[in-house]
Parts: sequence; structure tokens; C-alpha cells
Amino acid sequence: MTYRAPVQDMQFLLHQVLQISTSDIPGYADLDEGFTAAVLEEAGKIATDVLAPLNAVGDAEGCTLENGVVRTPKGFKAAFNALRDGGWTALDCAPEFGGQGLPYLIHSAVNEALVSANMALNMYQGLTHGAYSAIAVHGSAEQKAMYLPKLASCEWTGTMNLTEPHCGTDLGLMRTRAEPQADGSYKVTGTKIFISAGDHDMADNIIHLVLAKAPGGGEGTKGISLFIVPKLIGDARNGVSVGKVEHKMGIHGSATCVMNFDGATGWLLGDLHKGMRAMFTMMNEARLGVGLQGYAVAEAAYQAAAGYARDRLQGRAITGAANPQGPADPLIVHPDIRRSLMDQRSFVEGARALTYWGASLIDRAHRMGDAASDGLVSLLIPVIKGFQTDMGFQMAVQAQQVWGGHGYIEDNPASQFVRDARIAMIYEGANGVQALDLVGRKLTQDGGKHVLAFFDMVKAECTGHDADPRMEPFTKALKAASKQMQAAGMFFMANGMKNPNAALAGSSDFLHLMGHVCMGLMWTRMARAALTALDAGGDAGFLQAKLATGRYYMARQLPACGLHLARIETGAETVMALEPQAF
Amino acid sequence: MTYRAPVQDMQFLLHQVLQISTSDIPGYADLDEGFTAAVLEEAGKIATDVLAPLNAVGDAEGCTLENGVVRTPKGFKAAFNALRDGGWTALDCAPEFGGQGLPYLIHSAVNEALVSANMALNMYQGLTHGAYSAIAVHGSAEQKAMYLPKLASCEWTGTMNLTEPHCGTDLGLMRTRAEPQADGSYKVTGTKIFISAGDHDMADNIIHLVLAKAPGGGEGTKGISLFIVPKLIGDARNGVSVGKVEHKMGIHGSATCVMNFDGATGWLLGDLHKGMRAMFTMMNEARLGVGLQGYAVAEAAYQAAAGYARDRLQGRAITGAANPQGPADPLIVHPDIRRSLMDQRSFVEGARALTYWGASLIDRAHRMGDAASDGLVSLLIPVIKGFQTDMGFQMAVQAQQVWGGHGYIEDNPASQFVRDARIAMIYEGANGVQALDLVGRKLTQDGGKHVLAFFDMVKAECTGHDADPRMEPFTKALKAASKQMQAAGMFFMANGMKNPNAALAGSSDFLHLMGHVCMGLMWTRMARAALTALDAGGDAGFLQAKLATGRYYMARQLPACGLHLARIETGAETVMALEPQAF
Repeated sequence: MTYRAPVQDMQFLLHQVLQISTSDIPGYADLDEGFTAAVLEEAGKIATDVLAPLNAVGDAEGCTLENGVVRTPKGFKAAFNALRDGGWTALDCAPEFGGQGLPYLIHSAVNEALVSANMALNMYQGLTHGAYSAIAVHGSAEQKAMYLPKLASCEWTGTMNLTEPHCGTDLGLMRTRAEPQADGSYKVTGTKIFISAGDHDMADNIIHLVLAKAPGGGEGTKGISLFIVPKLIGDARNGVSVGKVEHKMGIHGSATCVMNFDGATGWLLGDLHKGMRAMFTMMNEARLGVGLQGYAVAEAAYQAAAGYARDRLQGRAITGAANPQGPADPLIVHPDIRRSLMDQRSFVEGARALTYWGASLIDRAHRMGDAASDGLVSLLIPVIKGFQTDMGFQMAVQAQQVWGGHGYIEDNPASQFVRDARIAMIYEGANGVQALDLVGRKLTQDGGKHVLAFFDMVKAECTGHDADPRMEPFTKALKAASKQMQAAGMFFMANGMKNPNAALAGSSDFLHLMGHVCMGLMWTRMARAALTALDAGGDAGFLQAKLATGRYYMARQLPACGLHLARIETGAETVMALEPQAF
Repeated sequence: MTYRAPVQDMQFLLHQVLQISTSDIPGYADLDEGFTAAVLEEAGKIATDVLAPLNAVGDAEGCTLENGVVRTPKGFKAAFNALRDGGWTALDCAPEFGGQGLPYLIHSAVNEALVSANMALNMYQGLTHGAYSAIAVHGSAEQKAMYLPKLASCEWTGTMNLTEPHCGTDLGLMRTRAEPQADGSYKVTGTKIFISAGDHDMADNIIHLVLAKAPGGGEGTKGISLFIVPKLIGDARNGVSVGKVEHKMGIHGSATCVMNFDGATGWLLGDLHKGMRAMFTMMNEARLGVGLQGYAVAEAAYQAAAGYARDRLQGRAITGAANPQGPADPLIVHPDIRRSLMDQRSFVEGARALTYWGASLIDRAHRMGDAASDGLVSLLIPVIKGFQTDMGFQMAVQAQQVWGGHGYIEDNPASQFVRDARIAMIYEGANGVQALDLVGRKLTQDGGKHVLAFFDMVKAECTGHDADPRMEPFTKALKAASKQMQAAGMFFMANGMKNPNAALAGSSDFLHLMGHVCMGLMWTRMARAALTALDAGGDAGFLQAKLATGRYYMARQLPACGLHLARIETGAETVMALEPQAF
């Protein structure tokens, strides 16, 4: 039951749904089916052979702080070297800095396999990728030359230092300070917590990107700037130390550190007092990456659960023995087990489609400067992050349930998937913050034009297939769900102005409502692509399964939109009825 | 943020809702408000002072196997002695065996506080209570005299040995054998797994109740008998040993053992080849106890989350600063945090009501031989177990989310509540099995008369209050939800006969649909009781909060019934569309 990358599903999205090789996005035309198949197969191989076997090891051993240095679990360093040596960390980095210049979409597809196989190990390169992007966008020519080649290759790794003990979401409360020095550098002092990959033994240097307040910037988030603070400057230790490695619920192989900066030397990255803006530049990619973790871990959990359900003999099918020679039938004959597995796979396949679509919008925005794509993906990001991680966790829990009591025992993989998946709902903006971002900001951004564009896409998808009766289960459900989403938007407009709480009390429900509409849109697109491929003589087993999985989602999951709308329309009254002291 | 037993809520249920002191159930009339308040306050005290401080200790240390003996975490033994010495383990045991003869309802209310404070530690006495009941019902006079006083006092503890490596739910596959001996005893041989409290260092002896096949009983579950297999016979070790202590996701303080029986001496308990029936006698109480764990852990998680939300300063209320002197407002001002806390408390209070009602039905059945109550509680048990543990886990997850990143760190209590709560969905019949029991058996039991009685109760509750407009938010929502439950039942009747999968594919949704209807019924009863008490000059703050919490549940949670019905009505087609090999 080792993880196998679902290459056929990935290829279906890239070529049948997104049709990348005929896309006008620069660089996409090079990506023919043979090329992406080769990349994904190779990524799948390293995921299966190198990363997956270390997943349980990382969970059991965790990271330890020894004499001020963090030790990663046995085997992590060799696996990280293998990723690095295979060029997997630099797929979408610029060729001038040693990267392969591939689209972000390909990076994302590859990343899925690596995360499914070993979420914790892959975080080291994920954080590095974020630091690479920040310096690539905001760095001076000198900074780029100095850091990007090392970060692209992961010879050096990166971190993001935002959170402090007393502030996470509310960065205006930040206390870390940066004092300017005569030579143009800064002395950075403060304590940061929850720093993923804050220290470890797999790289020659660690480049910390640190948010801190420099003098003269004013109160709140306005005074915040972003600094590059390396662990080593040349061969000399900088004033950075690890206070603690956290003992967490999951992702034990990922070192989550308390970082102490004691007059550490740092250099401004980007403009003074514009640190928040610099962070926001990376936010879409960072949040899409976490949304990807949501379904990637669920995929791994699903594969393990499906394998168990096929093998484990328990009870008999109610419609007659399916395995009459054996002492019992496999679990998978039971309708409630089947329901659970269908929940899982229909979510994962829909979320993969949404994530790849989001990644292609980011490519379109970055490579073509397309503002509409940038606006649309900004609208989708809280959904990709919030909905996919909430659901990904739920699905990992359902996968665990398939194992019965064996799922609760740490000898089996199910518990780790649940514990690992849990963090994705929290970090990179807790999902309540995603919902607030969606309802409080993204819906009305640029006069609401991105959400209107989204509705237009949904409408086009619903009306374009009236002729093909095989599309009806998709378009009918999608139409109904999108009407419910529109009604929720109307409720916010009608009530949110006089009472903002009336909108915010429904924010998490709206995030989920829109998440289901996005899944419905993806499944409608996938169904169309599958039917086209089927009519052209494609792999009938694969394509029929795709259609059946989609029909399941439309029939069983899309009706959740009605529940979310009903909740939203009750407004804030019952939510805010009690005084804080009554809790 | 230490756990405090919600004594006022418990008292409200016992006296305003269930009105126990005027009940006709034998023993209930002795339970006046002063008496139950004293019992619950004292139980709350031991929960807060003795058990709660050991909860994190038990999680961090776990149980270890040393030279064949299981060591419990530091402090567990002293706490267990305190429970024993205070008489807390024998509340509802028979006075002739050293118990206090109190109703099962009081045992349950007390148990809630103990489970909230320390679920793992309380399992040792929970299992013992099960063994006590089994011997009390099925034992010979000699067996009762020998075991019951020691089990009532927990000087000896008990276990239940059902599961084997290859069979959990499907006990017909059982391999453990019992060979009759000339002296009337048996030699029991086999391996049992997942045995809670299988071994430990807190009692003088451990009384294993073991299901095994004795010769002549035939195939499948028919040949199974129940045996008493003590760890020690006199001072001599019996042929019972611990193979392993499992490393689990949670309840680390509870020793989950692999038990090896190597020709161990055992004595038949109850009738030969009627072991399954003997187990079923205990099932309602055992499953109610697990359903209680579902909401009791959620209560503890809620208390911790509410405390954190009141204290942690982060962001500003969108309607204007609530804490203008401070650097930020407390988390609790944010509508999405408030929504989450309302979800949690409205579930917990409803589940407490359902559990206490179930316990009182068990008392009525046992103490008065009332078959209608026995039938009704048998119908409710899969809901109490399945719905309450599914929701209790979800609510513990929501509580953890309130903590943001701090909830993922094991220094804080949130993660343990989630990991502990997870097991309740699995053991004592996984929740999919509960759903199967409900739809496949309980709905139609005795010609469906128990579900009809349930509907009559709901109807009476809805129609009795038309005069009081304050009841409208309750009765209106309950009426709608119960119609949806009826529609689901009709769907099963119309489709389940020709295709049993059409019913079973909707079994988990039905379990949840009925769960919400039960919550709605409980909230309607609580609202009526609260209004009566309010009009009589009761504690307005408490009673208004109760009503507001109930209105939240009716407005925000009861609409889930519509979603479950929609799913049920799609039948089995999309669920069973794929062949097993397609997964």
C-alpha cells in the first residue's frame, strides 16, 4: 500500500482539461504529453521510492535540538539531497539562477506527489521556494545574485518569520525591532515562533526572512519591513539561535522552531516600511501550496484506505457473498465504506483540478501580466486554502475510519495522515481568516468584478452543454449551487452594510459554499473533457470512472450548498446573542 | 482554564427537564436538588483537583510494558485510589455488593465530569463497570459473591476481550478456543487485541471477560461463549500475558493491550454458546458510555477554547473596539470565533440532554421492566454513540482551531482533546456499524413501533406549545426536521426492499439526520423547561443563555437534516457505481 503518484489523473487535468500544450501562456506550448508524463513519472518514482518510506520514520523520530542545532530524522538528509540533486527543488526557478524555468503549474503537480509521500520533509523546500520568490521579486540585483542560486538548489534553505508569541494574525502587535546601522545593515532583535525549517542539518546555510519594525514607520502594520537575516555570514555565526523545537500534533519531521534574534545582522529586502506588501506578493502561491497539502495528504490517506478496504475481510455483502470461497468479504463491499471512499476520491480529484487551475491562473498572471487572472486567482485563493484544507482533513479522518481500530494505532499510516493534515487548516492564515478575507475583502475587490467573472464562467459552463444529456447531472446541480452562492452574496450585500457581523457570521459557511461551487465547476469541466476523450476512443475504464466519481460529487456533496445558504441567511442574531462573559 | 464541572447545566437537566424527584422510577424520588447538587459538586471537585491535572501527564507519559507488567503514568495510581476511596466507582452498584444503589442516571452524570477531566484514566473504571454488569446479570450466585464486591470497589478491575487481529466487527471469524476441563473449568487459548485496561499496576487483580468458541456450538457467532479469566487465581498467575502495549493516536494513559491466553483457566459466564447474547446485554450501557465520552471531551475542549478566546488579544471587532484601552480585542469579539463556540456549546448541551434522557430510559427499563423504554433506548443508542462521537470529535477540532497555531502545539490541551476524542468514533462498534445497526435493525425492530413512538413524542412536543410564541423557533424547526426524518424512512421503505444497498448507502446520513432531530427534541424540551423556570423567577442569566444557545442550534444546525435527506434520496446508484478494483 505504498503511495503511487496518480499520473493518469494529473495528465488528464493538464492535457484534457487545461489543454496546456495549446495554451497561449508562454512556456506552456513546450509541455507536450510525453514531456509532462516523463516529469510526473520521475517525480512519482522519487516520491514512492525515496520520500514515502521516510514518512513514518519522520513521524516517529521527530526533530531534536542538540547543543543548539536541530537534528532531522534519520534518512531525511539523504532524501533531501536526492531531491536537490534531481533538480526537483528548482523546476520553476529562473534559468539564470540555475532553475529550469518551467511553469508554476508543473511545480505544483510535482509538488503534489512529494507532499503526498512526505509532507513534513517537503516543507523544507517549500519554505525555501517562498524565500526564493520573495528575493526574486523584491531583492536587489546583488541580493538576487547572492541568494537565488543557492536557494534554487536548496544548498541553502529559507524561512519566513512572522509570528510572535503574542501575535499571529494581528501582526500590528509585532515587537521585533530592526535598528539601522551605519553600513546600511540592520540589527534585528526579537523572538519569532512557529518557524518552519527554522534550523536543521540538511543545508549549508539558512536564510531567514524576518518581519520587523524599523524606526519611523508608525504604528500597527505600517511600520513593518522585511529583512534578510542569514544564519551564517560567510563562516561566522550571526546572532540567531534556536530557542526550542516545538512538540506538535503532527508533521514531526518538520522542525518548527522558536527563533531568537539578538542583534542579528540583517539587510532590508524591498522597500522600507513596505514589508507587509512584500509578504502579500508571495501570499497567493504560499496559500495555494497549503491548499495543495490539504488534498495531497487526503490522496495518500485515500490510497491507503482503499487498499485496506480491498484486502481486509470482514462481514458479508448484504446482496450476497462477494468472496464466497473466503471466510468473509472485503470491507469494500459494504455501502457505507464505499460511500466514504467515494467522498474521499471525489473531493481529491475536484481539489486537484481547482489547484491546477489556480496554478495556471498564477502562470497567466505572472507570465502575461494578466490582471483578470490575477484578480480571479486572488478570489479563489481563500477557497483553495480554506475549503481544501478543511475538507482534506475531514477526508483523512474518513480514511482513518475505514481502518477501524487499526486506524488508531500508530503502526499504521492512517493516524499520521490525520495529524499531519490538521496543520494545513491553521498555518498560512487560519481558515477563519481565509473566510474573513473572502467575505470581507475578495468578494468586493475591484468593485466585485472578479466574483462576477466567476459567475459568468459558471454560467457559460452550465449552458454550453444542453445538447448532451450526459452532462445533465453536472450542469443541473452546478446551476442550482451557483444560484445558492448568488443568494448568499445578495444576503451579504443587503445586510452586511448595516451590520458587518451579519456577513462575517456567515463567512465560514460562505467559504464552504463557494468551495462546493468551485468543485462543481471543476467536475463539470472534467466531465466535458472526459466525454470528449471517451468519444474520441480514450481509456474507457479511466474515463468512465472519472464520470462516475463526478456524478457522485454532484449528487452527494453539492447539496451542502443549500445548508450553508440556510445558515448564512440566519445572519448574526443567534451567533452574537450571548455576551462574552456567558461563555 | 482548568476544567470545571457544569453543575448548573447538569442540575437543570435532572430537575427542570427530567424532573427526577417527581418521577415514578424507583429510587428517583430520593434524588432531591440538594442531594444531586452535593454529589455533582463533589464529583466536580475530584475531577478538577485530582483527575484534570493528570490528563496531560497521562498523554505525555503513556503506558509502558516493563518485564511483562504495564506501568501507568505517574500519579494515576493515587488518583485511581482517590476515586475508589471516595466510592465513585460504585455509585450504581448494588448495596449488597458494596455499591450505593443509585440510578444509572446519576452514575452517568458523575461519569461525565470524570471523563471530561481525564478520559484515559476513567477508562479503567469504565471497563470494570462493564464487567461488573456482565457478572451481575449473567453470573451464578457464587460468581457474584466472588467478583462483584471487588469489582464494585475497583480493588479488582475488569476487561472485555472481543477483538482479534483478523476480526473486529465480524466476530464470527473468531479463533480463540475454550476447551472444557473435567472440573467444569475451561482452558482458554488465543490472542485478543485492543484490550483496554488489559494490564496495569493499579489493582490487585484483573478479571478478563473473554469471548471464545467452545466445542459443539457450530459455525459463526453461534458457537461463542463468554468466560471469566482472572489474571490471578488466588496468588497464582493464570496463563494470561501481555503481548504488547499499543502506541496510539490518543488516550495514551489508557493501556491498550494485546492479550495472549495460553491455556488460561476460565469459567463460563452465563449460558454455553450464548456469549454473544450476554455481550448484547451490556451493549446499551457500554455504547451510551462512549456517546457520553463524545460530548464530555468536547465540553472540556470547549471550556479551554472559550477561556482562550476571552483572554487572547488579536485584532479588533469590526463594529468598533471592544477593548479600547488594550492593544487589541479578545478573540471572542470576532463573529467566526463566536460561531464556532456556539456550535460547540449548543452541541454539548443538547448531547448532554440526550444522554441523560437515554440513561433515565435505561433506569426505567431496568427498574420497572418497562419494555417500551427498553425499545426506545435501543433505537436511540446508535444515535447517542454514533452521532455524539462524530460531532464531539468535530467540535474538539473546532475548539482546537480557536487556538490558532498554539492549538497544534502539545504544550496546550487542544490537541490531546482531539486525539482522545477520535477513538470514541471507532471503538464499541465503529460509527459505520452504528449506522448499519440503526437503519438495518433498530428502525424496523418490533414492527417499527419504537420509531413510531419516537415520532409521537416529537409531535407531542411540537404541538403542545402553540400558545407560547417564545417556543416557535423550536417547534417550527423541529417539525420541519422530523418531517425530513420521516421522508428518509419512507425512502428506505420504498427502496430498501428491492435493493438493500439503497438504504445502507444512506445509513450514516440517516444516523446524523436522526441525531439532529434528537438534538432538536432535546432543545425543545430544554426551552420549555427554561421558560417555565424563567416565568417562576429562576436564574435569568443562566436561563436566557440556555434559550439563546437553543435558538442557535435550531437555526444553524437543524437545517443539516435537509442535506442528509437529499443525500439519502440519491440512493445507492452513485455510491456503488465503481467496481472495487477501480479504487
